[in-house]
Amino acid sequence: MSGISRRSLFGLGAAGVAAAGAGAVAARVLADEPPAARPVSSSSASDAVPFYGRHQAGITTPAQDRLHFVAFDVTTTERAELVDLLQEWTAAAARMTQGRDAGAFGAVGGAPEAPPDDTGEALGLPASGLTLTVGFGPSLFDERFGLAGRRPPALADLPAFAGDGLLPEISGGDICVQACAHDPQVAVHAIRNLARIGFGRVTVRYSQLGFGRTSSTSRTQATPRNLMGFKDGTNNLKLEDTAMLRDHLWAAPGDGPAWMDGGAYLVTRKIRMHIETWDRAPLAEQEAIFGRDKGEGAPLTGKAEFDEPDFAKTGLGGEPVIPRDAHVRLAHPTSHGGARLLRRGYNYVDGSDGLGRLDAGLFFMAYQRDPRRQFVPVQQALAATDPLNEYIKHVSSGLFACPPGVVDASDHWGRALFA
Amino acid sequence: MSGISRRSLFGLGAAGVAAAGAGAVAARVLADEPPAARPVSSSSASDAVPFYGRHQAGITTPAQDRLHFVAFDVTTTERAELVDLLQEWTAAAARMTQGRDAGAFGAVGGAPEAPPDDTGEALGLPASGLTLTVGFGPSLFDERFGLAGRRPPALADLPAFAGDGLLPEISGGDICVQACAHDPQVAVHAIRNLARIGFGRVTVRYSQLGFGRTSSTSRTQATPRNLMGFKDGTNNLKLEDTAMLRDHLWAAPGDGPAWMDGGAYLVTRKIRMHIETWDRAPLAEQEAIFGRDKGEGAPLTGKAEFDEPDFAKTGLGGEPVIPRDAHVRLAHPTSHGGARLLRRGYNYVDGSDGLGRLDAGLFFMAYQRDPRRQFVPVQQALAATDPLNEYIKHVSSGLFACPPGVVDASDHWGRALFA
Repeated sequence: MSGISRRSLFGLGAAGVAAAGAGAVAARVLADEPPAARPVSSSSASDAVPFYGRHQAGITTPAQDRLHFVAFDVTTTERAELVDLLQEWTAAAARMTQGRDAGAFGAVGGAPEAPPDDTGEALGLPASGLTLTVGFGPSLFDERFGLAGRRPPALADLPAFAGDGLLPEISGGDICVQACAHDPQVAVHAIRNLARIGFGRVTVRYSQLGFGRTSSTSRTQATPRNLMGFKDGTNNLKLEDTAMLRDHLWAAPGDGPAWMDGGAYLVTRKIRMHIETWDRAPLAEQEAIFGRDKGEGAPLTGKAEFDEPDFAKTGLGGEPVIPRDAHVRLAHPTSHGGARLLRRGYNYVDGSDGLGRLDAGLFFMAYQRDPRRQFVPVQQALAATDPLNEYIKHVSSGLFACPPGVVDASDHWGRALFA
Repeated sequence: MSGISRRSLFGLGAAGVAAAGAGAVAARVLADEPPAARPVSSSSASDAVPFYGRHQAGITTPAQDRLHFVAFDVTTTERAELVDLLQEWTAAAARMTQGRDAGAFGAVGGAPEAPPDDTGEALGLPASGLTLTVGFGPSLFDERFGLAGRRPPALADLPAFAGDGLLPEISGGDICVQACAHDPQVAVHAIRNLARIGFGRVTVRYSQLGFGRTSSTSRTQATPRNLMGFKDGTNNLKLEDTAMLRDHLWAAPGDGPAWMDGGAYLVTRKIRMHIETWDRAPLAEQEAIFGRDKGEGAPLTGKAEFDEPDFAKTGLGGEPVIPRDAHVRLAHPTSHGGARLLRRGYNYVDGSDGLGRLDAGLFFMAYQRDPRRQFVPVQQALAATDPLNEYIKHVSSGLFACPPGVVDASDHWGRALFA
């Protein structure tokens, strides 16, 4: 079973599934082997992204189209149970990201009297570029698991920002998993099966679906648009910028505890947009707020999307062409000692809010080397003066230390942390 | 501008957008013309589906992958304002389904001091198979608009079903619009722009996103899986079954008021699944509940998905192989005088519920000629004895009369109803 994808398994039909059940013992022996075929990158929407590597996939991986993000609370107080779970999760993640089922026994295999080892809704679907990326929240580093001394300084609690309207029940979390894929059914399936495997040891604190990535993480991708209709992430860190990634993304020796070397810190912010109010704002006001034109995404001082903004340029009356409080100016690296983020946000629509308004916005996610020098100063500037604040509200916040990658089948999520 | 898609508009860049603004008067004159190119069917994920026709698109159209469904309450009490809105909506729907912007002035056009005529987030995206399908709920047929005498008998209020847990705030609605597309950003954009156009005349009562269609509406499509992991809709009405569609789907002369001839009735049910409980049910129990095997989707008396179930076949002890209360038996047309439905449901995940459980399930949608003879008796049988009820809860319900198609640019949604 080890090398068989969900798609090819599907082709076997009922008889094949029965035979797979009979081969369950052999399958378990093979289950920890990495799959034979590992494409270097996801070149089509159905391809698999390699799971093993120096860094976790799902950070610089060209942003997939769909998100299912989950934050878990750990309910067991046994350190050994938590470590067991992380090992089981890693094995399931290694399988699912390669288009295989979550369990060792085949997609609907196992004994008839037992629950299936996989929930089945992704049977027949390809890997779909699935990545699963784990992170550990500040609340995990307490006396329960003996981790208090291993908390990285960069995992400092975020300060309160002006205008925050954070809901505790959809903020924080001991452990997060970001599932990104080109097919939401595949991303949903992955998170659901991790939750199923974690039953009795973790509970889901909150989860979030997203669509329509709002940033490019590769120069091969066009810049997408957020729900305000503007291109988002034009100036994002991209995987081709190796030197920039080294400086701004990956935790390095000396930064903090060694278990985070090669990892990155993730900040999540669910940003509700007052869609209906925004839609009634004049075009000129919308463009002044962003400092970019809406159609092309060019800075107001330029013609093309990737033209560098000229913050010094003045127009009639000596006022700067890009207003002093324009979003592009406040968020620009030159305003924060060069601070940059690797953003992987997604649009969300959670239906409507009972008051006739769409419950919609941006699930912002940004990876970085040290939030104290990157996300925090940028957000402090935005929270203080960004005219966008009239149209948005931050309703959830999360902070997670995402360890380096799982290097091979003998490794697992959090191994160095718990070593 | 009339023949220019969002995608080609995008290619024009900022200068092109400015020029389009200058041509706004001409664009308005042309806006009601049907687009020149209308492919017969959506053969690729980016193609446009024709808007004009005898029946509304989005019913037998091969089910797209994504859904944004909205129910509006009408807030104006002026019949003329409502008719104006339906005309404006029709014009916008005719444009957007062909991959164009919602407004007459170009995607971000119009005067700088005015809000844009389109919210912009679908700029650069193709038509993506978008269909927009309108329906009128029972509550619209009251004294407000002089429609009390025009309510079709088939639009009779649904009875209460055993076990219902309906939430009024996400049930009902005066008018619904079903947006289906291969890209959720396109479906969301369409509903959002209809809501924007309706400002001051309607409010959003509720909306729902869905993914992973749970039924095939064409023999060209493979049967997808619901979140219980089973193939769903194996026995669905399909667009190739012309005689069956005539008998079971389309309202015909003599059925009721003439304004519904060529239309169909839509029943929506949001069915929450107790995912975590289901995932702990043994495989044999899951398969007995459905009466089908999980891997292939074959009836328990057969080997392949499309084998006819043999309800008379008995096994050990003389018990039927397909249990007496199996879902496939209770829902089968032979149990209801041949009653059939055209289902177009979608999986949904609305995050989690604050109790550690996924807030997930099926947004069931079924089109039919007369719910009194189709949905109602089937659901009464299911509500009474289906063992699936242990794992599901109906939390919302909607009923809508979906009129026939808009035949050309001189026609509009609801024209015959308000004539």
